[in-house]
Amino acid sequence: MECKAVKGTRDFLPLQMQKRNYIFNTILNVYRQHGFLQIETPAMENLQTLMGKYGDEGDKLLFKILDSGMFLREEKIEEFANHIKASEVNKATKMIAEKGLRYDLTVPFARFVVNHQNDITFPFKRYQIQPVWRADRPQKGRYREFYQCDADIIGSDSLMNEVELLQIISEVFSKLKLNVAIKLNNRKILSAIAECLGKKDQITDITVAIDKLDKIGMENVLKELQDKGFSVEDCEKIKPILLINGTNKEKIESLAKIISCIEVGKKGLEELEYVLNKANNLGIENIDFDITLARGLNYYTGAIVEVKALDVEMGSITGGGRYDNLTGIFGLPNMSGVGISFGADRIYDCLEEKNLFPEDIATTTQVLFINFGEQEGDYCLKLAKQLRDNNISCEVYPDCAKLKKQMKYANDRNIPFVVLVGESEFQTKTPQIKNMTTGEQINIEEKDFAAYFLQ
Amino acid sequence: MECKAVKGTRDFLPLQMQKRNYIFNTILNVYRQHGFLQIETPAMENLQTLMGKYGDEGDKLLFKILDSGMFLREEKIEEFANHIKASEVNKATKMIAEKGLRYDLTVPFARFVVNHQNDITFPFKRYQIQPVWRADRPQKGRYREFYQCDADIIGSDSLMNEVELLQIISEVFSKLKLNVAIKLNNRKILSAIAECLGKKDQITDITVAIDKLDKIGMENVLKELQDKGFSVEDCEKIKPILLINGTNKEKIESLAKIISCIEVGKKGLEELEYVLNKANNLGIENIDFDITLARGLNYYTGAIVEVKALDVEMGSITGGGRYDNLTGIFGLPNMSGVGISFGADRIYDCLEEKNLFPEDIATTTQVLFINFGEQEGDYCLKLAKQLRDNNISCEVYPDCAKLKKQMKYANDRNIPFVVLVGESEFQTKTPQIKNMTTGEQINIEEKDFAAYFLQ
Repeated sequence: MECKAVKGTRDFLPLQMQKRNYIFNTILNVYRQHGFLQIETPAMENLQTLMGKYGDEGDKLLFKILDSGMFLREEKIEEFANHIKASEVNKATKMIAEKGLRYDLTVPFARFVVNHQNDITFPFKRYQIQPVWRADRPQKGRYREFYQCDADIIGSDSLMNEVELLQIISEVFSKLKLNVAIKLNNRKILSAIAECLGKKDQITDITVAIDKLDKIGMENVLKELQDKGFSVEDCEKIKPILLINGTNKEKIESLAKIISCIEVGKKGLEELEYVLNKANNLGIENIDFDITLARGLNYYTGAIVEVKALDVEMGSITGGGRYDNLTGIFGLPNMSGVGISFGADRIYDCLEEKNLFPEDIATTTQVLFINFGEQEGDYCLKLAKQLRDNNISCEVYPDCAKLKKQMKYANDRNIPFVVLVGESEFQTKTPQIKNMTTGEQINIEEKDFAAYFLQ
Repeated sequence: MECKAVKGTRDFLPLQMQKRNYIFNTILNVYRQHGFLQIETPAMENLQTLMGKYGDEGDKLLFKILDSGMFLREEKIEEFANHIKASEVNKATKMIAEKGLRYDLTVPFARFVVNHQNDITFPFKRYQIQPVWRADRPQKGRYREFYQCDADIIGSDSLMNEVELLQIISEVFSKLKLNVAIKLNNRKILSAIAECLGKKDQITDITVAIDKLDKIGMENVLKELQDKGFSVEDCEKIKPILLINGTNKEKIESLAKIISCIEVGKKGLEELEYVLNKANNLGIENIDFDITLARGLNYYTGAIVEVKALDVEMGSITGGGRYDNLTGIFGLPNMSGVGISFGADRIYDCLEEKNLFPEDIATTTQVLFINFGEQEGDYCLKLAKQLRDNNISCEVYPDCAKLKKQMKYANDRNIPFVVLVGESEFQTKTPQIKNMTTGEQINIEEKDFAAYFLQ
């Protein structure tokens, strides 16, 4: 029987895990330094928690879990069959599946906050690093299972939270040595633009279109807007806004002339300026006010942010924003929050392409003890224990195999030191240490053994 | 809309995560010190990988994932309906679900080894810490989602691997400060006992029955054996074996008299003695040869091990054993392996009951900066950066709220130090540090600020 991993999902080999852990640990250490607390939620949620939160397309992409046991009673077959015949997949699904796998970490987090509101200290700074699942058609760089690394601050509308999240983004990529541009905008500015055009209701059409400026260019954006029913005059009004350029300060000034007569526009620009100034004071200089940044998710109400790697062909590697009513759908209104999410898989690809993983990432075990036989092996077990008590990772080769085979194991595993205790070393209690990088060999007295590796 | 977590699954609050991470980190650090490499496999596997590996009961307990999109074509409805009417739940399931959630980490690991055999260095020492799912009826202490923490060595039949795993068990529980008894047996000994009775084929019946000796007592074990068709004479033969007691050495000697005439029995006793001696030499003294230890899983072929906490009412908290042909079902025969699995949830409950979590487990953020206003807050952001550069976790309270509210936050979050920068401290650049445990307050010059916390 040949069995493979499910299409669109991945096994992670040890070296890949080392690299992934390097990214996860970098992110979570920064989260922790900023006082964020970890939570976890279950892989599966009731479908009523998930359905309707990600649009129709999202509902389709939810993995649904078949109810346990006899999932459809005999007397229900006809009803079920009728749904299938009518292509009413949602209704048929509802009859046999009440649970689904989480699609992101945001909706489960909102449910979590509502369920545990009495056990949480607000403002609540939480981080969560867990996989999510989407029943997407697998293709290059798009997986059905992938990790999200989210941090949110909920229960405070202070803009200092936005500043802190920008600081976190900056620190993470600085630690990862990846050059990035941080794009910042504010949903209130986008609202003001829509209001300027007298098309308050069509803010989604506007944001969806201008979000594509980078990819499809000005002409196509304007064409898309016209397809959505915007007039040529509307487009003439939008065009100069999209053409605004210069420094952040210059862009804010240019835009202010157009939208600060509108209250929400003035507010949006003030928020933006405040956040940019504070971030600047903290030495974060790679933030770019991007009027065309829209982000697809409709729940954002204030700052929105996206990060792109410089000199790498890759979409957004981190994103986030302010939402004023995420928990409202679950019955807890007026709980403002702001959050970010690092895309670990894309960051992985960027680091790989730029060769930015630490050189010693493939090294795990520091020392291999060659096994020359029973009494030497027993002696090595004791030396190994000494090393481990000093937190040095080591292995005793389990079989008394040929030396060549054991040395090949050390090589394949990138183990930097090999210890050889043959009969004479055993008699004199002077293990021989071979440095696999330099080839250097040295005999060490037992009492100095662990110290040698602690230098 | 009220939404809760799925029955039988759990949200983990920050304090629970701290405690869980303490357990996971203890285990994985020991794994790493012994040179084990981490891998991960996807949450979902093809059902053909999973079905038939855990017995009929296991097949029922697999969570199946409904196929995406229109999961049942119209022309298949009749066939499907017929299966439902005939209560053929397996056949009906097969028509609409091709994937399932993993039930343990062992079967996915076997698939992994077969799929990646050319990318792996053997002997392959892997560890894997991931959740598994079982569609069990939820009850106290039994969850539908729980973590397993497995380590296996595959591709070496050396008994040194058994010794190393016992060493790992001993180190983990010693680090967790939990007193345990390690029970050791060998499947070959159980085979020999079956052979002694002339009931080689009924080894499963025998092991299932004697495994319960602890729980149901001798009389009921013998009764169960009789129900399975064993004669009174058979039972008379088994009874003295189950009554064997004394030190490990004495038990081995007593048993040898009965089963060492049988080849597999002799081999089993030799293996057991070898492993016990080596472990003893390494200072592991809490291993108990338990003739009644059987463990349910049929794939074990050599050593079997189980760990129980002393003075806690709790089933096995760790288990494992040697299997000679786990990858055979996936087309890679003759690959001997041995592994263990720590039950993190039960260990958690033991540590909780015995009050063994570190005292400072609730402390995450070390320092809270009270927010007294914009300019003081900006100054605190810079001080906070200094601390984080020294790897000290800290937060600036995001709002200029009432002092009482901010101090309550520090208290609720178990933050040991609070920094107060009001107008005068800001002018003189001498932040005030309050030790929340002692109540002591001290003003520190800016240049000595970070150093204060590094003492």
